[in-house]
Amino acid sequence: MFPIDDSTRGLARALHNSIKDLPIISPHGHTDPRWYAENAAFPDPAQLFVTPDHYVFRMLFSQGVPLESLGVPRADGGPVETDGRKIWKLFADNYYLLRGTPSRMWVDHAFAEVFGIEQEFTPATADAIYDHISDCLTKPEFRPRALFERFNIELIATTESALDDLKWHKMIGASGWTGGKVVTTYRPDSVVDPEFDGFAANLATFGDLTGTDTQTWAGYLDAHRIRRAFFKEHGATASDHGHPSARTENLSTQQAEALFDRIKGGKATPEDADAFRGQMLTEMARMSMDDGLVLQIHAGSRRNHNPGILHKFGRDKGFDIPGRTDFVNDLKPLLDAFGTQHELSIILFMLDETTQSRELAPLAGVYPALKLGPPWWFFDSAEGMKRFRENVTETAGFYNTAGFNDDTRAFCSIPARHDVARRVDSAYLATLVATGRLNEDEAYEVAQDLTYRLVKKAYRL
Amino acid sequence: MFPIDDSTRGLARALHNSIKDLPIISPHGHTDPRWYAENAAFPDPAQLFVTPDHYVFRMLFSQGVPLESLGVPRADGGPVETDGRKIWKLFADNYYLLRGTPSRMWVDHAFAEVFGIEQEFTPATADAIYDHISDCLTKPEFRPRALFERFNIELIATTESALDDLKWHKMIGASGWTGGKVVTTYRPDSVVDPEFDGFAANLATFGDLTGTDTQTWAGYLDAHRIRRAFFKEHGATASDHGHPSARTENLSTQQAEALFDRIKGGKATPEDADAFRGQMLTEMARMSMDDGLVLQIHAGSRRNHNPGILHKFGRDKGFDIPGRTDFVNDLKPLLDAFGTQHELSIILFMLDETTQSRELAPLAGVYPALKLGPPWWFFDSAEGMKRFRENVTETAGFYNTAGFNDDTRAFCSIPARHDVARRVDSAYLATLVATGRLNEDEAYEVAQDLTYRLVKKAYRL
Amino acid sequence: MFPIDDSTRGLARALHNSIKDLPIISPHGHTDPRWYAENAAFPDPAQLFVTPDHYVFRMLFSQGVPLESLGVPRADGGPVETDGRKIWKLFADNYYLLRGTPSRMWVDHAFAEVFGIEQEFTPATADAIYDHISDCLTKPEFRPRALFERFNIELIATTESALDDLKWHKMIGASGWTGGKVVTTYRPDSVVDPEFDGFAANLATFGDLTGTDTQTWAGYLDAHRIRRAFFKEHGATASDHGHPSARTENLSTQQAEALFDRIKGGKATPEDADAFRGQMLTEMARMSMDDGLVLQIHAGSRRNHNPGILHKFGRDKGFDIPGRTDFVNDLKPLLDAFGTQHELSIILFMLDETTQSRELAPLAGVYPALKLGPPWWFFDSAEGMKRFRENVTETAGFYNTAGFNDDTRAFCSIPARHDVARRVDSAYLATLVATGRLNEDEAYEVAQDLTYRLVKKAYRL
Repeated sequence: MFPIDDSTRGLARALHNSIKDLPIISPHGHTDPRWYAENAAFPDPAQLFVTPDHYVFRMLFSQGVPLESLGVPRADGGPVETDGRKIWKLFADNYYLLRGTPSRMWVDHAFAEVFGIEQEFTPATADAIYDHISDCLTKPEFRPRALFERFNIELIATTESALDDLKWHKMIGASGWTGGKVVTTYRPDSVVDPEFDGFAANLATFGDLTGTDTQTWAGYLDAHRIRRAFFKEHGATASDHGHPSARTENLSTQQAEALFDRIKGGKATPEDADAFRGQMLTEMARMSMDDGLVLQIHAGSRRNHNPGILHKFGRDKGFDIPGRTDFVNDLKPLLDAFGTQHELSIILFMLDETTQSRELAPLAGVYPALKLGPPWWFFDSAEGMKRFRENVTETAGFYNTAGFNDDTRAFCSIPARHDVARRVDSAYLATLVATGRLNEDEAYEVAQDLTYRLVKKAYRL
Repeated sequence: MFPIDDSTRGLARALHNSIKDLPIISPHGHTDPRWYAENAAFPDPAQLFVTPDHYVFRMLFSQGVPLESLGVPRADGGPVETDGRKIWKLFADNYYLLRGTPSRMWVDHAFAEVFGIEQEFTPATADAIYDHISDCLTKPEFRPRALFERFNIELIATTESALDDLKWHKMIGASGWTGGKVVTTYRPDSVVDPEFDGFAANLATFGDLTGTDTQTWAGYLDAHRIRRAFFKEHGATASDHGHPSARTENLSTQQAEALFDRIKGGKATPEDADAFRGQMLTEMARMSMDDGLVLQIHAGSRRNHNPGILHKFGRDKGFDIPGRTDFVNDLKPLLDAFGTQHELSIILFMLDETTQSRELAPLAGVYPALKLGPPWWFFDSAEGMKRFRENVTETAGFYNTAGFNDDTRAFCSIPARHDVARRVDSAYLATLVATGRLNEDEAYEVAQDLTYRLVKKAYRL
Repeated sequence: MFPIDDSTRGLARALHNSIKDLPIISPHGHTDPRWYAENAAFPDPAQLFVTPDHYVFRMLFSQGVPLESLGVPRADGGPVETDGRKIWKLFADNYYLLRGTPSRMWVDHAFAEVFGIEQEFTPATADAIYDHISDCLTKPEFRPRALFERFNIELIATTESALDDLKWHKMIGASGWTGGKVVTTYRPDSVVDPEFDGFAANLATFGDLTGTDTQTWAGYLDAHRIRRAFFKEHGATASDHGHPSARTENLSTQQAEALFDRIKGGKATPEDADAFRGQMLTEMARMSMDDGLVLQIHAGSRRNHNPGILHKFGRDKGFDIPGRTDFVNDLKPLLDAFGTQHELSIILFMLDETTQSRELAPLAGVYPALKLGPPWWFFDSAEGMKRFRENVTETAGFYNTAGFNDDTRAFCSIPARHDVARRVDSAYLATLVATGRLNEDEAYEVAQDLTYRLVKKAYRL
């Protein structure tokens, strides 16, 4: 990932050397807290690298490989491939499809660095590698906590539904494990998005959990306050919100009550649903002003683009497609209310790169409440990160960005992802120095900031 | 076009050496099949390089050179410059305007490689170069078939209206020429776009040609099936559709019949016209499921932007301007119906680069029916191709792309255009290797794939 | 800013050497003509570098520094910091926030080149640098006219309201100063934008100034004609228009009269206001056809995004955020009327980079009336300029661009801004040569054109 010019590459390498051993702070991701709680062995290699990884199975599907043959579970529980070795063989046969993608780098990196594999992954070596990884997984040093410590993770944040009982976090807390810190994140989509499956039932559960009347607007807001406090007890420093757009609203109490009455039964119109999601971002910001939770907004994914796949396999099957996002207009109601509050921390994530230089950098470069999250999802890649720095730094600087998130479900890819980010940032900084735009001593300081300090600051860790 | 760093440049050059002599596959373009049928000498240099080339005459017009003075024919048949040497002189005087453009490279390349000209093209050398090219054009080795063979073209696809009699293709077929393969492409805009000049009359002709009742929806669809079969007999492996947006529809038969009844008289509302074009993309996909033709969608050109020019000079006079395109929403009806069918091949072309990383790569990276065509029109350029690879590879990989199209009317530019594509791809691959993102042996394989194998596969050649 | 490869860097440096001493032509900017008229000493360093510079104070504000503490005046005249040294200390403490931004380069450049400061600017050196600059400012060679001459400015255009009496320009003219030329620019937003503060009163003043009845459409247009002539007498060669979009209209006289009647009282609906601004761009183009003024359109800033800041501090306080712009549709009415007129010169500026390759280059590459202004505001930066050249050159060439504008209020940043532009262009040209896309002798010629000739030609200087 380093620049191709010799002297610039030398500086990039030196910068990377200065940060490569810093602890990993992973303030946003989707690893399973059960892993760290139970510390059980991971299952077979296919279950670790193929079946749960939508980056991988979407690419194979795009070239005609059926999802069933990769073990992806069907919504109706119908039969899918369960033989890990067969799945692995398909993976090896089609591994060339991943050339030039981040997944290829992550898998190669995990094979080499986590499992010590020196061979290339090909159909010819597939069986041997499968055996090797299977063998590793039986050993104590490949249990989740051991890997966590070996990966030099200082802190990882998982993401749980507002309705989650956080039992795995309790179990981690009670276990006496001192090798790593695992915190939760408050993700209330299931009780904030009127179009979420089972929304009306979720509201009822939400009331039961908190002892509030979630059939009233006031009670519903109280329920959030109570759950946010509960999540904070288990380490949460942030909430997280995945919305199709960045729309916000700032309705009067009467308007909000009327809207809530229309949506609470689970039969919202699309417009009411969208307005409600928008209103709730502003309500979350208001609560953050009180309880200090950082507000993460992940905006712009058109989820479940294909109804056939949604019906057959359910959500999160690689059919979430980015769409245009308008932060300038959509965030205005929230920013009018709270944007100039420096004590509020809102971290914005986007899937529409055109907003980087046009909207996000100008907004984050002036609103004290805003910080920019790292390139997300499809853009968690060498080119994506490079474009992000080139597009935002000149207007927002470095200090309105929030360092790196791995945002992953794939535990073994965590070191690879952080390493890619550190390399790309090192390359960018080296290029600034080589072209006379930054002093070398500053580059070392910024490298530390991007990798460690800004992450902890933005997430209040 | 190669990277400026020495070692990366060396690898780029080696990669290019490995593919530069591969035959040219030109699966989509607008050369005139009459050339290959009659094999007559090309007319004078101005008619070859200036008058028909909208890239060239639009640039000169932008700086005040009247189209008439370049010999561009008027719609009313009024007088325009016919003296090739005078047109050539104007071209030479204004050639500096093309600095930094692909046209400049294509013309320079054709002068040097096709006509063996070693001088720079300037007002001072214009006459001598005119004489030299004129002289060449009288020789047998500069006849269309001789150039075709010298250009090492394995196959070229031309593009014909659904109403075309394909007589030139018949003549080529009957001629016994074995030096090259020329196939047609089914382009039904004149009977699919209700806003096309003479649409109602075209429908009648369409019925006459096929013996169907094109006043009914069912008969109209049958006419397409019959013509598609006729085009397949003359080598067609694809249809092609030039639409202002990527809009698709998937109406019920009743809805489609009602829409067809409203538009068949030639007086469609803009909304009906747009809906009908959208419906026909889905119908074409449905027919492709039966007859196997590849479906090419060229979306996003706002044609004939200036009414004065359209009135005076007609269509295709450099006033087609790209506009925003929304593939995520617009393609959904078609993709809901057929997107997950691996036996369908849809190749998408766009003029809105912002869709590359945000929409096209995520769509092509998961839908088996979708492939991405190469950068089109204004983006058939060194920077355009570089941005395309950087924007799409990380999400769609290489294998959901369809290799290069020259898409040209300018026969002598074909070797130049393919060579630029091969150089840019070699440079991109060399950069991936130099930055540790691809192995060198893989780069050689991918270079072959992009230049040759993927083109034949995507177009079923 | 030069390329990192040694040989390309050598050529870039040579190209820059060939243009670095060319006079500065500054055809559009916001420096205060009073400076050149009175030639008084500039006030303290904070007033020169911090308080009036929205690039600087917006970045500090984004990290929690109150605007009051930087001396930014309040709309209600309430107290703000007035101690220049205290403001300077805050600036120094937070100077690291500007790392990687153009402001950092401009300030560093001005410190070094204008004030001869060799130290880095840090909290430790802040006081000494403050003293040094303060001391300089008392000397005759740091008066505005002396700096103007030292900066090698051949001509600077300021920008004045249509209601301005141009007294400073008269005073400059009467002063006999021969060291530099200062011209005005006709900026009629206050009488063209129905949403401008005091629009109705402005119309009345406009009538008084011109002896016309600005309560009628015809009289109102006459008033513009009269003021344009007055501005031309004081050197204006251009008008300038800052609109939220690129919308244009070309209404019939009756429609325009009816619209004018609705908006003249100062209570326009948003749609009427927007339509009127659009109509006036076309009217200005029509007047330009008569009087030859160049028409500058600065489109796409969503001004005063935060109502709290607008209320407390007024306009131009760093809260103007770019938004999506659609030039293809919005400019059509104007282009239908006048786009093919080569004697008209319209210079387009934008804040939505996605329009560069998709819309602006294709439009400017064919319409004789259109030229592209340089990257504006947030994009007046090394990366912004590089992207601009890469995005537009292949389609619009170099000769449909208008050279560089500094567009600044910050006098001392003028040499830095022009130098950055010259370096970035040199780097771009060197890269074209190194990659075989331009001859070296042409690169030298284009460098001269971009820096000097095209600016004078586009602005008719």
